[in-house]
Amino acid sequence: MFKRPRGTRDYLPLDNLKRKLVIEKFRNVFELYGYGEILTPAFEHLELLEAKAGPEVKEQIYWFEDKAGRKLGLRFELTTSVARVVGEHRSLPKPIKFYYIQPMWRYEEPQKGRLREFWQAGVEFIGSRSPAADAEVVALTIRALREAGIEDAAARLNSRDIIEGLADSKGIRVEDRDEFFRILDKLEKRGRDFVVEELNRIGVEKREAELLAEFISMEGSNEEKLEEARILLKNSDRGLNGIDRVSKIIQILENGYNLSDSVYVDYGIVRGLGYYTGFVFEIISENVREVGSVAGGGRYDDLIKLVGGFELPATGMSIGVERVIEVLEAKNVFAGLTCKAAKVLVAPVKSDYLIEALKIAEALRDNEISAIVDPERFKLRLLLDYADRLKIDYVIIIGEKELSEDKVTMRNMKTWEQETLKLEDAIKKILES
Amino acid sequence: MFKRPRGTRDYLPLDNLKRKLVIEKFRNVFELYGYGEILTPAFEHLELLEAKAGPEVKEQIYWFEDKAGRKLGLRFELTTSVARVVGEHRSLPKPIKFYYIQPMWRYEEPQKGRLREFWQAGVEFIGSRSPAADAEVVALTIRALREAGIEDAAARLNSRDIIEGLADSKGIRVEDRDEFFRILDKLEKRGRDFVVEELNRIGVEKREAELLAEFISMEGSNEEKLEEARILLKNSDRGLNGIDRVSKIIQILENGYNLSDSVYVDYGIVRGLGYYTGFVFEIISENVREVGSVAGGGRYDDLIKLVGGFELPATGMSIGVERVIEVLEAKNVFAGLTCKAAKVLVAPVKSDYLIEALKIAEALRDNEISAIVDPERFKLRLLLDYADRLKIDYVIIIGEKELSEDKVTMRNMKTWEQETLKLEDAIKKILES
Repeated sequence: MFKRPRGTRDYLPLDNLKRKLVIEKFRNVFELYGYGEILTPAFEHLELLEAKAGPEVKEQIYWFEDKAGRKLGLRFELTTSVARVVGEHRSLPKPIKFYYIQPMWRYEEPQKGRLREFWQAGVEFIGSRSPAADAEVVALTIRALREAGIEDAAARLNSRDIIEGLADSKGIRVEDRDEFFRILDKLEKRGRDFVVEELNRIGVEKREAELLAEFISMEGSNEEKLEEARILLKNSDRGLNGIDRVSKIIQILENGYNLSDSVYVDYGIVRGLGYYTGFVFEIISENVREVGSVAGGGRYDDLIKLVGGFELPATGMSIGVERVIEVLEAKNVFAGLTCKAAKVLVAPVKSDYLIEALKIAEALRDNEISAIVDPERFKLRLLLDYADRLKIDYVIIIGEKELSEDKVTMRNMKTWEQETLKLEDAIKKILES
Repeated sequence: MFKRPRGTRDYLPLDNLKRKLVIEKFRNVFELYGYGEILTPAFEHLELLEAKAGPEVKEQIYWFEDKAGRKLGLRFELTTSVARVVGEHRSLPKPIKFYYIQPMWRYEEPQKGRLREFWQAGVEFIGSRSPAADAEVVALTIRALREAGIEDAAARLNSRDIIEGLADSKGIRVEDRDEFFRILDKLEKRGRDFVVEELNRIGVEKREAELLAEFISMEGSNEEKLEEARILLKNSDRGLNGIDRVSKIIQILENGYNLSDSVYVDYGIVRGLGYYTGFVFEIISENVREVGSVAGGGRYDDLIKLVGGFELPATGMSIGVERVIEVLEAKNVFAGLTCKAAKVLVAPVKSDYLIEALKIAEALRDNEISAIVDPERFKLRLLLDYADRLKIDYVIIIGEKELSEDKVTMRNMKTWEQETLKLEDAIKKILES
């Protein structure tokens, strides 16, 4: 029989409920910060998607030709699409604040936390170069994750400019920069020896590579780390700029957002995508580190020029929804969560009473009480069993006696208490419960 | 510069708000009837999608090969995916009631009301052969559309069995049946002459074709139409079955759901998809007919066997979200709808006060009041102008005087009233407003 495609998943109602609970928290936080939701097509012109994708990601785009011979690709992230939208709507008041909660697609080897269809919830803060914009994006991401149940969300901050400064100081050629970034990005996953070897491969001497790996994985307070970097990069304007920027963002996060305990300088944060121009960050759950980063983002001051045709600085982030759910599962946040089909099952004990049952169910719905009627079962035992499996709260039984008295018998499925009463009174009881 | 792909659209926040208002009404109604949301991947194995697509639709599937050489296609409707899911989860308690609100894709010539990416909101009622299941689906669709603002939603009911009976009576060969259905489906759009000519082309004599077209577009009460059909199809068991079924469904809709005024027999309703096995229906806005049907569905008793591997009768429907919005626009339902960026703009009149402004914004958000701070403007005039363009309700001004008194100045952007007060009192006022 037919199966779903490899690397994808189906969400049945209970799993979907988890997804929705998380997403609604995100939505609420994004809106509290004044972001408006936008929706763009699932596919874009392939050329747009490839504009800043980087070679690894390009390989992972699902693409096809339409009948007019246009190459279209499924989006693998949304920032590029947002940049396109902004380019097509130049008169929007700036700064522009957009959010999205949508699926993305990437042809990757499926593994824990990596699916071929995955959901991202993200924001874009467009039209400001201020470090306050970056700080806001970090702060709202932490708030969104905390509201969803990741109380120990912490941000790791860095700047591409610092990494570029390091590359300058080590004499890495421009054409090797992307490779250089990719190698540093692997430090946490593959370890120091791997990184040293790889750096050596692109021409960094072993001793230099070791010092670099040491610098990147340095321990200490944020001030110590920034000071170390200032010394190391004292001859790189770009590097010093990056350090100042990160330092300012941290000050704002500490003083404006009261987040002193949750933001760390981490020179190992590089981010995979090619469009970042300066500040970058990732967020982890401090106690569930094995899932990796649950959100990430940074500044992309050139992207809108590239795809939208006019200069507009921007910063943003996206949260990996499945990863968040994975962390929450590890934290047992969803323990005991149930997904009831409806509040009430209206149960006619004879098929002759079906129309009467339908009327009662409609009256319940008119009062915003969810109700179902099973057109297949008319035996009380079977109906109660069905109600039980669906986690129904109340069964309203319609029998001969009830109909003749113009009443209903209502059974509480938790307490098994049962009483016969007027429908209006039953509705009142349910609404008060 | 880059444009979005032809036949797709972007939803900026105001348009997205319309979409969301409509979708949330649908969601609420689906849940009132006990349907649980499911989510399936955007693409499926092409073979699955093609299983019951019909030749016209097959041509319109966006498909591609993944790197393992598997053919995948973007879903163009969701019923087939739901049938797959049910096949993979055989132990679900039955009847199963699922709903979805998701985008679909179809390579069609773009025109008003037809996009290449379009949203559908639908339900599937799986595991019951009862006409009460069909009636529920029709009734909840009408309720969903009415709640969304299409008060004049009306259902047109028919059965494939009746059409098959007609085909039998006219001696249409089995291999011409699909074509026969397609021709009848065009009656409303292309007119009687076109249909007569086309029927003639597949071998129906002109006089017979005219009688058929006349029968299909017959006027009269539901009883009269059903009676006419009973006479015409007196020798077709299948046709008579279809008539009885439609008649029973109408009785339930009239008596159980109080919908006498909103359901019509219409022998012109055929539905394009290949999987329907009996009852079919479409819903229109009686006063905005030019948009065409806004929802449709019917019974598909063979599909789950075909794609899921076991016998399970089912019925369902889907609503075309863009079409609904089109009808609502025609009815002027969204007149005056605005999309405010946030409730409050916190406005520091000097960049030195930015941190203070951020703290105040955070305090507002802690009280579930949406708030923004613009890190680019520190002149009151510019800030008020920005607030105006974003439809902000209150501007909280942070100046030297306010800071020294530990107060804020709050301006109501509608009344232009302004007062200086404690932040707690400002929050209270906003929450009470």
